[in-house]
Amino acid sequence: MIRVAIIGATGYTGLESIEIIQRHPQAEVTYLTALEQECGNAEEVFPRLKGKCDIEIEPLDFDKLSDLADVVFCCLPHKVSMDFVPKLLGAGLKVVDFSADYRLKDVKVYEKFYNVKHTDPANLESAVYGLPELFRKRIKGKNLIANPGCYPTGALLAIAPLLKERLIETDSIIVNAVTGSSGAGKNPSDKFHFPNMNENLFAYGIGSHRHMPEMEQIAGEIAGSDVQILFQPHVGCFDRGILSTVYCQPKGKTGGQQLSKLYNDFYNGEPFVQICDDAPAVKSVAATNYCHISPACAKGRVIIFSALDNLVKGASGQAVQNMNIIFGLEETLGLK
Amino acid sequence: MIRVAIIGATGYTGLESIEIIQRHPQAEVTYLTALEQECGNAEEVFPRLKGKCDIEIEPLDFDKLSDLADVVFCCLPHKVSMDFVPKLLGAGLKVVDFSADYRLKDVKVYEKFYNVKHTDPANLESAVYGLPELFRKRIKGKNLIANPGCYPTGALLAIAPLLKERLIETDSIIVNAVTGSSGAGKNPSDKFHFPNMNENLFAYGIGSHRHMPEMEQIAGEIAGSDVQILFQPHVGCFDRGILSTVYCQPKGKTGGQQLSKLYNDFYNGEPFVQICDDAPAVKSVAATNYCHISPACAKGRVIIFSALDNLVKGASGQAVQNMNIIFGLEETLGLK
Amino acid sequence: MIRVAIIGATGYTGLESIEIIQRHPQAEVTYLTALEQECGNAEEVFPRLKGKCDIEIEPLDFDKLSDLADVVFCCLPHKVSMDFVPKLLGAGLKVVDFSADYRLKDVKVYEKFYNVKHTDPANLESAVYGLPELFRKRIKGKNLIANPGCYPTGALLAIAPLLKERLIETDSIIVNAVTGSSGAGKNPSDKFHFPNMNENLFAYGIGSHRHMPEMEQIAGEIAGSDVQILFQPHVGCFDRGILSTVYCQPKGKTGGQQLSKLYNDFYNGEPFVQICDDAPAVKSVAATNYCHISPACAKGRVIIFSALDNLVKGASGQAVQNMNIIFGLEETLGLK
Amino acid sequence: MIRVAIIGATGYTGLESIEIIQRHPQAEVTYLTALEQECGNAEEVFPRLKGKCDIEIEPLDFDKLSDLADVVFCCLPHKVSMDFVPKLLGAGLKVVDFSADYRLKDVKVYEKFYNVKHTDPANLESAVYGLPELFRKRIKGKNLIANPGCYPTGALLAIAPLLKERLIETDSIIVNAVTGSSGAGKNPSDKFHFPNMNENLFAYGIGSHRHMPEMEQIAGEIAGSDVQILFQPHVGCFDRGILSTVYCQPKGKTGGQQLSKLYNDFYNGEPFVQICDDAPAVKSVAATNYCHISPACAKGRVIIFSALDNLVKGASGQAVQNMNIIFGLEETLGLK
Repeated sequence: MIRVAIIGATGYTGLESIEIIQRHPQAEVTYLTALEQECGNAEEVFPRLKGKCDIEIEPLDFDKLSDLADVVFCCLPHKVSMDFVPKLLGAGLKVVDFSADYRLKDVKVYEKFYNVKHTDPANLESAVYGLPELFRKRIKGKNLIANPGCYPTGALLAIAPLLKERLIETDSIIVNAVTGSSGAGKNPSDKFHFPNMNENLFAYGIGSHRHMPEMEQIAGEIAGSDVQILFQPHVGCFDRGILSTVYCQPKGKTGGQQLSKLYNDFYNGEPFVQICDDAPAVKSVAATNYCHISPACAKGRVIIFSALDNLVKGASGQAVQNMNIIFGLEETLGLK
Repeated sequence: MIRVAIIGATGYTGLESIEIIQRHPQAEVTYLTALEQECGNAEEVFPRLKGKCDIEIEPLDFDKLSDLADVVFCCLPHKVSMDFVPKLLGAGLKVVDFSADYRLKDVKVYEKFYNVKHTDPANLESAVYGLPELFRKRIKGKNLIANPGCYPTGALLAIAPLLKERLIETDSIIVNAVTGSSGAGKNPSDKFHFPNMNENLFAYGIGSHRHMPEMEQIAGEIAGSDVQILFQPHVGCFDRGILSTVYCQPKGKTGGQQLSKLYNDFYNGEPFVQICDDAPAVKSVAATNYCHISPACAKGRVIIFSALDNLVKGASGQAVQNMNIIFGLEETLGLK
Repeated sequence: MIRVAIIGATGYTGLESIEIIQRHPQAEVTYLTALEQECGNAEEVFPRLKGKCDIEIEPLDFDKLSDLADVVFCCLPHKVSMDFVPKLLGAGLKVVDFSADYRLKDVKVYEKFYNVKHTDPANLESAVYGLPELFRKRIKGKNLIANPGCYPTGALLAIAPLLKERLIETDSIIVNAVTGSSGAGKNPSDKFHFPNMNENLFAYGIGSHRHMPEMEQIAGEIAGSDVQILFQPHVGCFDRGILSTVYCQPKGKTGGQQLSKLYNDFYNGEPFVQICDDAPAVKSVAATNYCHISPACAKGRVIIFSALDNLVKGASGQAVQNMNIIFGLEETLGLK
Repeated sequence: MIRVAIIGATGYTGLESIEIIQRHPQAEVTYLTALEQECGNAEEVFPRLKGKCDIEIEPLDFDKLSDLADVVFCCLPHKVSMDFVPKLLGAGLKVVDFSADYRLKDVKVYEKFYNVKHTDPANLESAVYGLPELFRKRIKGKNLIANPGCYPTGALLAIAPLLKERLIETDSIIVNAVTGSSGAGKNPSDKFHFPNMNENLFAYGIGSHRHMPEMEQIAGEIAGSDVQILFQPHVGCFDRGILSTVYCQPKGKTGGQQLSKLYNDFYNGEPFVQICDDAPAVKSVAATNYCHISPACAKGRVIIFSALDNLVKGASGQAVQNMNIIFGLEETLGLK
């Protein structure tokens, strides 16, 4: 059994990770930590876990951690994570980091978008971006995985085949996305107060969302050249899911059938990426590790729709998928 | 034109009051106040009002208030209200008070449930409980109206005919109610954080909700004897509305037709109470000043269903209805 | 009092029209019609109207109609409407038509997208597209107004200033929009069955939505040249509202301040279009006749966000606005 | 591996059963059937299953069924089920029946509430009511299990300790319950059309719901005497879950601590019933096989709150729990 510790366990990705690992036949949650004021028995902190997870969530103790765990899910916020990760690695643990701290290879881009100095450039360099469908081979056996952002996961899976085959212009990609409200995290705020958010929909992060450079970096790597993406996120009145609608300018003529073949070939054999004939719906992937993708042609453009669950394929499920790969387990364990 | 000031204007009942009065042909909003940190132009505070309400929300200035207003909607919290009301009355203003401070005639009951000393017993004594369908005559021309609670409005309209006619046992009434989330007010909290409240439903205030003694007092007055009510509130994942399901023990045999006649007779001519053949739905009364009621017999009990909008008939709409009566206007102005 | 008849009164736009006109000080609903199987008293057909609208919805009788009405809101489906409109006009009535039958000036485009022969080209030619903010002068006194589609209203108000000033490329506009579910109409279906639609979001009408040529026609008229629009609609799990996110390629350099000035100038004095600093939210315009618009610059593009209520500014409210203009009333009557 | 066939697989309980069994380490779905017009590959019928369940849903073929399955989940509607069950049993299969056809031991009660003659009284007599927490011993090894109704599961688990200990009056129990909309099944209808059901809440089945006699029968068996229950269901605007609020009259004095001890003792060791200190929330049990229960005292009454997922503990999860017991597996397999 792989022993999993979760640091920063009291947020939504912590809960989701616990629930997924509880269904995993070869992994178990052994240690949960949080800030002191958020500690308590996991069954009290999360009423969903009542009767299922009699573990104390404690302030982090590194000795205990290295005794109890083989791998750490580091669910700390951006900026905080890079203070902990070097110590975790130093203790010989494998780390799947949920923050953005090890995703952006260019320190300057990181420092611009996150507005803080990067304090761990050494590990940043060796960290692997954990999008298995694109980088499976690199992930195997690695010590530090930068678990992708929820939006980039959906957008990158949507455009990877087109970028790889150089079928689209790389200076004019638009990613219009709508996330469910769990993407906002657990802390109450005016915007996400139920009577304000219910029956609502609005845009945010105009021209400035931190997932934009992350998309561009990975897209550029896939394309082998600079890629410019205009990413516009919105938030809607549902719990889970991201629907990305991606608009691209094809370089030549492209037809629906050609696209369908391209996508089916590209993702052939992938367990968690499904190419759909109809436009995908977030409800069809909610609470699953699947990403449903459908490409289409309209008025000379290519539109790709992708749907995934922001907390599963966009966070905790993908982390488990990465863990399975790191340890050489069957990739779908606990996730199908 | 009746000039209306709203004190404590930045909450949901403040906004609702503004929107209703803007549609009122013989009233206008002239002055809005709030705590200093919540002040600002009404169109900025409430984006819904953009282009419709270019009024500064200011800290309360009594001189300005008495210059600008004929009537005050006092939307302050319980306990705060009774500090302001004597001064408002002293300035010659009519007051419709949204808090509970002038509803409970028995100071001891007030002090037990609200856990604070009542500091204005004199005005408490003269205040009129503003449920027009039951106390219309008392309201006319009065200076201080205690605007009823949202739950009591729905429950009392549901049981008044039975109590008045002494058709039910008065020691065993159960009021099971579900409110929309706007009843929680505007302040963010864990329970009402969208990802927690969405797709949810739960009970609260078990055996201790402050609207219980309010229901009992008015029910007792209608019945002419002591009435015991077990009131159990719940909150559901919708914005507006309260559905009350009231269980009563009839004294003798009662049939559906008899009940229907009783309710139709009792509320004959009432503009805002409608007796329905089918179980009422909160959506049918959302954003209206109507209360839909349907009585039924089942297994020897009487069940009465009532639906209203907690912010309109349960608060701001009823306040306007009371204002119309106070000033001798047509009761439905601005509300139909 | 202007006497309003509503033909096809049993749908969502019929109900919305009734509720708006009931608040209108100089108009009244006098006649309601529907297919025989949907007839009944309006208060039974729509429980929301109980106690407010004791009118029989009847099969259409032209004699009665011309006796009882000055203006007809024709809420019939596309294709059916053009069978009725010539008779309505022949009877001397003013008509606001909610269908698409009189919107597309090019009969060939109509016939391609609606897949039916146009049977009333004469009236099509004289009909005026009823978007008051752009065509107010043409509307005054006219007999037949083609009430705009809900999506085109939001998209056209969003891009009109840029098109008019020739600031954007006209061959690459993308309109990404999400509508609330009331846009689907009143007939139950699998997709809109609550357990399927709730917590869901998906695209539809890929490359083929009938509002696309409508947008292009009016946009072309504003720009004075051919305009190509890629319109992609989605449906979300909320009742009311459309959020349009419009992506444009500016011809030259454009900045946020310049855009803000352009929009504020263009819509200066418009009662129902408000330019917002923040991204607009559908909840802020729900159940109002307002359209909130916010332009922004991001990565060399211009993004314009617009929010409106599909049933009000996108249908029944705009119809009342048009009616007010036709009859020379104050344009905001019944709508503020 | 236990081979499971699902008859009537195209409804919500069919999908839920498939998803649960796919996570079950010792069971697999081997055969799926439906009416001819609903057949198709399971991945097409249910987009959620894409990439996970490449099985054709076919019209029922008894030979195939008995070759392919050890146990049948019979998800047919009431009345239809009893036409099939005798043949399934005759073919040597174990049957978990989701309908009401084998729940009501008194044929007259069945025939009154379901308005049809019971055609299989022999199997009715031997069928076991599959509520494991109360009847675990009877279930083991049996051939035909009547899987309980969703409402009775929540209500009976709530009152069983009080009935067993004879602590409450048995002539005055009130079960007020609110279900999520998935309880309505998959067929579209006016009431459950999203724009009608969203933001709504209403009662139905007043005095006549078919789960009422089911509750009374089992409650009577627990109590050892006749029990009268007034059951009033409502439906709310959420997908999953039932919250039951049960009002009882205690025979003697009862306190909160005594109740807490009673419930904790009664359900001690039960994996799926959890006694909570706070009022349970439907979201805490959504998509789980758990039932959260909390008893309280208020104004001389006992109120018990219970929350479960109507499709899991109220249907498919409980069926898997019963299957585990029948075959002597660990009861929680696939469900924790």
